[in-house]
Amino acid sequence: MSKTPIIIDCDPGHDDAIAILMAAASDKLDIKGITIVGGNQTLEKCLNNTLKFLSHLDLHIPVAAGAEGPLLRGLTVAPYAHGDSGMDGPQLPPATQKPVEMNAVQLMEKIVRESEQKVTLCPMGPLTNIAIFLRANPDLIEKIDKISLMGGTTLIGNRTPTSEFNIWEDPEAADIVFRSGIPLFMQGLDVTYQAGVNDDEIAQIRAIGNKYSTFVADLLDFFSKYHRNLGRMYTPLHDPCAVAYVIDPDMFTTEDHYVEIDMDGELTLGTTVTHNFGRCTHAPNCTVSLGIDREKFVKLLFDSLEILGRGGRYA
Amino acid sequence: MSKTPIIIDCDPGHDDAIAILMAAASDKLDIKGITIVGGNQTLEKCLNNTLKFLSHLDLHIPVAAGAEGPLLRGLTVAPYAHGDSGMDGPQLPPATQKPVEMNAVQLMEKIVRESEQKVTLCPMGPLTNIAIFLRANPDLIEKIDKISLMGGTTLIGNRTPTSEFNIWEDPEAADIVFRSGIPLFMQGLDVTYQAGVNDDEIAQIRAIGNKYSTFVADLLDFFSKYHRNLGRMYTPLHDPCAVAYVIDPDMFTTEDHYVEIDMDGELTLGTTVTHNFGRCTHAPNCTVSLGIDREKFVKLLFDSLEILGRGGRYA
Amino acid sequence: MSKTPIIIDCDPGHDDAIAILMAAASDKLDIKGITIVGGNQTLEKCLNNTLKFLSHLDLHIPVAAGAEGPLLRGLTVAPYAHGDSGMDGPQLPPATQKPVEMNAVQLMEKIVRESEQKVTLCPMGPLTNIAIFLRANPDLIEKIDKISLMGGTTLIGNRTPTSEFNIWEDPEAADIVFRSGIPLFMQGLDVTYQAGVNDDEIAQIRAIGNKYSTFVADLLDFFSKYHRNLGRMYTPLHDPCAVAYVIDPDMFTTEDHYVEIDMDGELTLGTTVTHNFGRCTHAPNCTVSLGIDREKFVKLLFDSLEILGRGGRYA
Amino acid sequence: MSKTPIIIDCDPGHDDAIAILMAAASDKLDIKGITIVGGNQTLEKCLNNTLKFLSHLDLHIPVAAGAEGPLLRGLTVAPYAHGDSGMDGPQLPPATQKPVEMNAVQLMEKIVRESEQKVTLCPMGPLTNIAIFLRANPDLIEKIDKISLMGGTTLIGNRTPTSEFNIWEDPEAADIVFRSGIPLFMQGLDVTYQAGVNDDEIAQIRAIGNKYSTFVADLLDFFSKYHRNLGRMYTPLHDPCAVAYVIDPDMFTTEDHYVEIDMDGELTLGTTVTHNFGRCTHAPNCTVSLGIDREKFVKLLFDSLEILGRGGRYA
Repeated sequence: MSKTPIIIDCDPGHDDAIAILMAAASDKLDIKGITIVGGNQTLEKCLNNTLKFLSHLDLHIPVAAGAEGPLLRGLTVAPYAHGDSGMDGPQLPPATQKPVEMNAVQLMEKIVRESEQKVTLCPMGPLTNIAIFLRANPDLIEKIDKISLMGGTTLIGNRTPTSEFNIWEDPEAADIVFRSGIPLFMQGLDVTYQAGVNDDEIAQIRAIGNKYSTFVADLLDFFSKYHRNLGRMYTPLHDPCAVAYVIDPDMFTTEDHYVEIDMDGELTLGTTVTHNFGRCTHAPNCTVSLGIDREKFVKLLFDSLEILGRGGRYA
Repeated sequence: MSKTPIIIDCDPGHDDAIAILMAAASDKLDIKGITIVGGNQTLEKCLNNTLKFLSHLDLHIPVAAGAEGPLLRGLTVAPYAHGDSGMDGPQLPPATQKPVEMNAVQLMEKIVRESEQKVTLCPMGPLTNIAIFLRANPDLIEKIDKISLMGGTTLIGNRTPTSEFNIWEDPEAADIVFRSGIPLFMQGLDVTYQAGVNDDEIAQIRAIGNKYSTFVADLLDFFSKYHRNLGRMYTPLHDPCAVAYVIDPDMFTTEDHYVEIDMDGELTLGTTVTHNFGRCTHAPNCTVSLGIDREKFVKLLFDSLEILGRGGRYA
Repeated sequence: MSKTPIIIDCDPGHDDAIAILMAAASDKLDIKGITIVGGNQTLEKCLNNTLKFLSHLDLHIPVAAGAEGPLLRGLTVAPYAHGDSGMDGPQLPPATQKPVEMNAVQLMEKIVRESEQKVTLCPMGPLTNIAIFLRANPDLIEKIDKISLMGGTTLIGNRTPTSEFNIWEDPEAADIVFRSGIPLFMQGLDVTYQAGVNDDEIAQIRAIGNKYSTFVADLLDFFSKYHRNLGRMYTPLHDPCAVAYVIDPDMFTTEDHYVEIDMDGELTLGTTVTHNFGRCTHAPNCTVSLGIDREKFVKLLFDSLEILGRGGRYA
Repeated sequence: MSKTPIIIDCDPGHDDAIAILMAAASDKLDIKGITIVGGNQTLEKCLNNTLKFLSHLDLHIPVAAGAEGPLLRGLTVAPYAHGDSGMDGPQLPPATQKPVEMNAVQLMEKIVRESEQKVTLCPMGPLTNIAIFLRANPDLIEKIDKISLMGGTTLIGNRTPTSEFNIWEDPEAADIVFRSGIPLFMQGLDVTYQAGVNDDEIAQIRAIGNKYSTFVADLLDFFSKYHRNLGRMYTPLHDPCAVAYVIDPDMFTTEDHYVEIDMDGELTLGTTVTHNFGRCTHAPNCTVSLGIDREKFVKLLFDSLEILGRGGRYA
């Protein structure tokens, strides 16, 4: 079976890092590149976080830096969730890897243009890089197989009452992506708050005992604090859902809807307005995940860390 | 026990009429006036509907005409739900009653100014009249005991994916009401879609066999078609919730939240943005109903129609 | 000749006070009431300023307090132009007069309802009171002869690059007024920056030597500082233009245009969008003043102060 | 003297074509490429117009097709001014030239990246291509010498009362350009309505008698009709101002201002909000042309056509 070529666009970020590991462990995926966008923290910090953990874990994947901030708006970072470095928790040595000599959009272009297969995009941060890539290369849109993105919500937000952080950060970029015509799979808060690990499971991860699992346990020890303080039983693994959907879509329950992005509401900016109320005349543009088999999802994470521990991936 | 003086502001409307009957039957309430606003249909049609059914049912309550349309926007009516007359179904003779020689705002002012007790407002349509009244008479705000309104939603709308019709119709008026400081009780779609009757219950209403129940059954025969076509088991009684909450708040489960009105989102206009996501720093301004004891609610409706059938109310 | 009954709605304010004196001196006008709105300063300060100078100058006109702030937005005051009191400069004893026992909207309603002639409105502040009055009393719209207002600009603003202070302060109220259908005469910055006095003329005013001229000279000594600092040769008398237009419209050159109010532009809020560019399909709703015979205008001011000095007006 | 390398981004368009000829005739400029954007007409029509007239006039410059429409909005074309083809008037044979095998953004990137000198951009249509280029290649921003663009207005618009067509068409792209930090020279309606030719001058152009002047006279015969119908004495040559400014800036009188783009006003969309009213705290980001030496400008046009007639340019 031929592997699915994917590009991961992200702003590591705790859950971004875990998502990358999950993708790296999968024999169904071939990670062609990792592109970085300013989001959870500044571009510089997110790039540095990525290079550090890839170096530490001996994973060799082309990394390119992209947009410092949204298409039209200033960047707002999320230290309340991810700490000052954007990936607080694990103590890692300085990176030995370097980014490629192309920016994110150029790396995406090169990968997609040169690929014989259609490429899958997995965005896990603000959609700035993806939007610029799509607008700069309209001829390559037909070479994108699908986009499985972490972002949005049909009901309750995490940045404002109605909007999720990634979409809220760059609603104009999201608008470009959601109207691109590319098959779209939205892993929003509806599903990602179900896709969490509890404290026992974090302990089980640590018990796996290889450097990958130790790194992930260190990430989760930090990341779980924020969510535990908000009274949550599970620490949500938002970004890994975007990867998990590409690996095993059957894990998810979904509905197809027409989803639009609010770009002008003072209170509602970045809402993924989902026409699921019975009066919509538009064809769906998005497959929205609403549920996940959490047990299966957690098992996929455990398995991924064990597989990586046996070595040989992206080495 | 002294009765609660209330003013019902409405745009009859099937469920408006039922709400008025429920209020008229209650020995806890003293309906001081009914004020009409353009909403479900034009002001003229809503006024005429009201006078016709009050005449037919021999209920004598002062009625005043108010705003023809929203504060700042044009009027959009809802014939898809309420028919061309705004209250299609029952065949009623022409009205014998006339409105008072005051407009809605003047009647509200007179009632509130002359009342020894604080007055409760029950708005069931766009909040235009209420907003104008509050801005024209800031000294009377302290004489409003509370506002129990039908409108809004915390999750899914009925006019747009995120907004309910009444608030969407006049979001600026809603903003004035929600920021008025008056104790606010929101009976939105969260609860009103739970507050419905099924076809058996409509038959039971008809079987009560007095002119009030016949009128209500005729209303529901028409009104249920729209909802049955949308696949709903229950025909929601939106507006009666605003009255039922004043009669028996224990019937409802509620949460207190800070609720703001979206006034500028092209896609989200009229959303009652509810800060229920764990990061709100504002004090609540609204008690939001989220559940109702449907059996109790339906029993209240049945009882109301029987009480009215025994006569003597507002005669 | 019968006098024109007018209501002056204002937020004194240096130029507001001068406008009231100009109106009080005119044998063409009968000032039926002065209504106060929060604008240049808080409602309380503007009310107090008004009562103080009317008391000091022995002018007896009913005064009523109106809206504390805009229909939907918070109040922004303009101490940079009018000082901390809102009318810095003249040292006046405490007011001996009191406001009437009605609010602004009620006083307007009473005056207009009881007047046999149609009434002219002269608003010189944010249009909040006027908008509430019009929405609360739609039946009285036909009894308004015209509105001559100080506000707006067709080209360059004084609050933002494109908007004038009064309209910017409450754009929603302005929208209600501009769409009311009442004959509208806009004295905006286009004309009011031409309607100024220079330092010689301020000295001539002081030389008139009665208590009215002394008061006005004291006002202008303060008010001219702000404008002189901005490099202006003339201290503009914005608000007196609204009155002067009612007294002697021939002093003005005008064009009829369709004017709309921007209510949602982050940068352009409150712009009086004037369809004067050759592609408009709407009928004009506003007579826009673009020029003034400054000599005549200044002479009207001088004459007014001399007339008042001879006594007997509103005594 | 080394020539200034420029890229012309345009949507021909009558005045676009004339601007290209003016640039082609100048020994100060080296046109490195012409990039096309949807604007006055669809991308396809604008591309075809360009290839046709370059073929007909035997001018050989790389041409690349860019964005079909604005960053976020649908395309609105202007057949009322430019006819159904987007360049009605001249009857030209089919194009013999073809666009390069790169899109507009790629051609810009290649030219700028390979250029030893800094490159000047001359956009004359919606700023979509330029914005995408800048966001896709942030490292090349420092290699842009300046942008001299046709667009905007400080006072009166031609698409809405306050906005000019090119900026109105894609305000988000304009926002990216105006906030790019690149030295910006705005040739807006303030100056371009002064930069026109009258009917005598159109006849003089035709009298030059070479194929270039015949083509331009044919363009102007058509284009002048629209403007003559609006009562204008001069047919404005909007786009040539962007080129003329690069050739001879001394022809222009200018002011430096901070200019922002309105992106959300329903009535004011695309306004180039110019902080020229005395209260701005931002440093200028734009040199705004307010006047032009029309005689000199018209002479430059005449001279350009004669120079081209003598042959040898871009052959």
